Amino acid sequence: MMDLTTALQKFSEFEHKLYAYSYAMGVMSYDSETAAPEHSAEGRGEALGMLSEQVYQLTAGAETGELLDVLQTHQSELSVQQAAQLRVWKKDYDMNCKIPAQEYIEYAKLINKAGAVWRKAKNENDFSAFAPYIEQIVKTQKKFAGYFAPDKDPYDAWLDEYEPGMTRAQLDTFFANLRSRIVPMVQRIQRSENQIDISWLHQQWPLAGQQQLAKELMELMGLNNGRCALGETEHPFTTGFSRDDVRITTHYYLEDFTFSLFSVIHEGGHALYELNTAPRLQRTCLAGGASMGIHESQSRFYENLIGRSREFCGVIWPIICKCFPEQTKDVSEETFWRTINRVEPSLIRTEADELTYCLHIMVRYELEKKLFAGEIEVDQLPEAWNSMMKEYLGITVPDDTHGVLQDTHWAMGSFGYFPSYALGSAYSAQMIANMRSDIDVDSLVAQGNLEPITNWLTEKIHQFGKEQLPAQLLQNSCGSAFDSSYYTDYLEKKYTEIYKLTDTDKS
Amino acid sequence: MMDLTTALQKFSEFEHKLYAYSYAMGVMSYDSETAAPEHSAEGRGEALGMLSEQVYQLTAGAETGELLDVLQTHQSELSVQQAAQLRVWKKDYDMNCKIPAQEYIEYAKLINKAGAVWRKAKNENDFSAFAPYIEQIVKTQKKFAGYFAPDKDPYDAWLDEYEPGMTRAQLDTFFANLRSRIVPMVQRIQRSENQIDISWLHQQWPLAGQQQLAKELMELMGLNNGRCALGETEHPFTTGFSRDDVRITTHYYLEDFTFSLFSVIHEGGHALYELNTAPRLQRTCLAGGASMGIHESQSRFYENLIGRSREFCGVIWPIICKCFPEQTKDVSEETFWRTINRVEPSLIRTEADELTYCLHIMVRYELEKKLFAGEIEVDQLPEAWNSMMKEYLGITVPDDTHGVLQDTHWAMGSFGYFPSYALGSAYSAQMIANMRSDIDVDSLVAQGNLEPITNWLTEKIHQFGKEQLPAQLLQNSCGSAFDSSYYTDYLEKKYTEIYKLTDTDKS
Repeated sequence: MMDLTTALQKFSEFEHKLYAYSYAMGVMSYDSETAAPEHSAEGRGEALGMLSEQVYQLTAGAETGELLDVLQTHQSELSVQQAAQLRVWKKDYDMNCKIPAQEYIEYAKLINKAGAVWRKAKNENDFSAFAPYIEQIVKTQKKFAGYFAPDKDPYDAWLDEYEPGMTRAQLDTFFANLRSRIVPMVQRIQRSENQIDISWLHQQWPLAGQQQLAKELMELMGLNNGRCALGETEHPFTTGFSRDDVRITTHYYLEDFTFSLFSVIHEGGHALYELNTAPRLQRTCLAGGASMGIHESQSRFYENLIGRSREFCGVIWPIICKCFPEQTKDVSEETFWRTINRVEPSLIRTEADELTYCLHIMVRYELEKKLFAGEIEVDQLPEAWNSMMKEYLGITVPDDTHGVLQDTHWAMGSFGYFPSYALGSAYSAQMIANMRSDIDVDSLVAQGNLEPITNWLTEKIHQFGKEQLPAQLLQNSCGSAFDSSYYTDYLEKKYTEIYKLTDTDKS
Repeated sequence: MMDLTTALQKFSEFEHKLYAYSYAMGVMSYDSETAAPEHSAEGRGEALGMLSEQVYQLTAGAETGELLDVLQTHQSELSVQQAAQLRVWKKDYDMNCKIPAQEYIEYAKLINKAGAVWRKAKNENDFSAFAPYIEQIVKTQKKFAGYFAPDKDPYDAWLDEYEPGMTRAQLDTFFANLRSRIVPMVQRIQRSENQIDISWLHQQWPLAGQQQLAKELMELMGLNNGRCALGETEHPFTTGFSRDDVRITTHYYLEDFTFSLFSVIHEGGHALYELNTAPRLQRTCLAGGASMGIHESQSRFYENLIGRSREFCGVIWPIICKCFPEQTKDVSEETFWRTINRVEPSLIRTEADELTYCLHIMVRYELEKKLFAGEIEVDQLPEAWNSMMKEYLGITVPDDTHGVLQDTHWAMGSFGYFPSYALGSAYSAQMIANMRSDIDVDSLVAQGNLEPITNWLTEKIHQFGKEQLPAQLLQNSCGSAFDSSYYTDYLEKKYTEIYKLTDTDKS
């Protein structure tokens, strides 16, 4: 058998190769969204296919299996970092090897087809066309979970893919808390007489001003370091290829500058996480975020806890006024603050405000859980969706296009992914509570000095990449295990103030 | 030994892999010039290094050597296309294998260092700092030529790398013609009383107008096909990853819109070549241009023969007026035409006008040839440069920064590359002469109908990619072997008209 030194050397070469492939494929994908000509998809697809095949051969190859076995036998001699690298690759290897190749190929074809069918079904408001695909995807995913995690409930197995360690049991507690505290809160706000007037926003917001605002915002967040670039895409996202090469994107709507403003803050939060991973983790599988939920906690932290705070408005409003002197001349900072915190239950998740967003996620979680448990049939999904939207948000869904068909996730087979969006928000509220015992967050934000805040997050979370599991990172940053009451406390306090709710609103 | 069917199958897989690597590395390189953050070079360099290594292992591997041998033994059974593919890969393989790996690694290090030294030397006007690198590079290149082309003169061997089949003998004839006809022409123009006033150009040309102009120009050239995208870089260039994914770039100078205008036409000419390669050559080594000179003939064709023609001004000037209504209101089409054809001998090659450009190349060719023949010492280069600039262009070179140190090519080891710039112009003049016997070029250009022109070039040149050698492509498109008198005839006729030269100017 190979000795440990040789194995570690081979392992390093293996990771270096994968780093290069992942860099290349990442840039090709980013380029395809930002710069590539419209009809270039087929030729690029062929090239990406070949590179994916190289990656598959490396990560699922017999040689890699042996290498991981050797490292496993030397487990006790590995450093913390090496043990974490082994954990990540072993999970990846098992996933690749335990699912029979032929079944995986069939599944990839199914997903490929499902995407096109979903798009058409959404456009034509035809749930029945997409239904058989949901059926088949869920069936396959349950089968796959049996291969790679035979001891787990299948939905827990998939939750673990996005949020290692997360279970239905924890999520049930989390969402029960949301249901009991946020649903009534939304109802109280709807009944309130203190509604927020946002009519001043209905103006034209020139591109040059929006671009200038994005630039100044990135400076404020410390993203002007030559390691992060801003691009323009249909839907904003963040992608990182190394800690010195992170990209965020935004979209400028001429009729609403706040979309770009908050997408830059949100993606900027993701970017800071990628940028602040410890250099020692570079070119290894541990670079990048620990989980979807932890990553989302960083973007929501900046977007909502910082970006929509009263203190931050004091910093960003003068910059907005500088970028749009004409448009803002009769608007107060207070009005801006209330505008960006307006609550309005609506149909579409991606357009939801801070308070109602998590209720959209709750609808999806309940349905996914029931689907996997066989407690609901696929053809019952639209009705169940609509009834929960009514119950949680007081909203009547007019059609499936604006209801159960709105998201692409199920067509992509991403069951178990949605909860991480809500977890991110909840984690961030718990983090800031703990952060407040170390630094004076509000004063720092009011001064526009975000550096100590980012440093705190780097020390507790960013630097570790995937080396620590989410539970450990929560312990570091929250001082305790996940507890969603921080989140509901925060939301209640904030929105009671904004909407000037009194006890009489409760009735 | 492997049978032909198996060999061809393996060969196809081999090319498919290289297509993917080349696509990935091409996009990474394009992205690095257009979108990547400033400090991302190191991490990307590591990834590119690993991918290059994969490419080297494939193209220079023993398995590939055997494969090429098998195909070689079946030469008579190969199709024209297969034989051409074999020719290209065999040349690449020989180049990779005949140079000892250790010597090649040393050379790569030398070139890497030379780039930084050259940049510093240029900035500090310190030729002596860069001189030892020229010495060492030429010495190494002569040695390498002995490995991969032992029967050839070393400079001819390197010429052949950029322009297959080209020799000093042909270039000597070409440049002798330029010397005898263009040098006196430039002198006559300088003595002429009909100088061109370009003071109207000294205005601000807003970005939005320049972007609109670039867009309309691309439409005019048929580049609005969803297969070609325009980017913005410091120096314009063209790169193609597949016939459905070609990128051109430009640079907008607010003080001179003609720079972007002509860079888009020039790069657009390159792009049309890449876009119109026959689909059957895709994903093979034959996709893309046949040689540097042939590629340059396409860009110069559009830039000068079309773009600076009197007829094209009738089409583009109204568009320019639409993009810049204020700036152009007192300017005539005639003035624009004369402005873009103004001759003014100057120090810097990349800023030279159509007429004097080839004389800059002649200076470089003469020096490269003498260096390789040992007829000049490296430390004599600045003096020789300055004296030729005086002789050919009547220009006094103030310092080496604006003289012998201006170009990056020698630091990159690209000896033998410069002549292709002048060859491209000369080829294009010969091509248009032949094209005129098939279609009425001037009327088509005057109508803004460039499609039949591009179709003609596609039929004679573009479609063949690298399948045919430059000599064959010249035969197709010029109806005869290379003859530079078409070029000098064209220049004489054009500039006699523009500068209204009479016989008395000759004295």
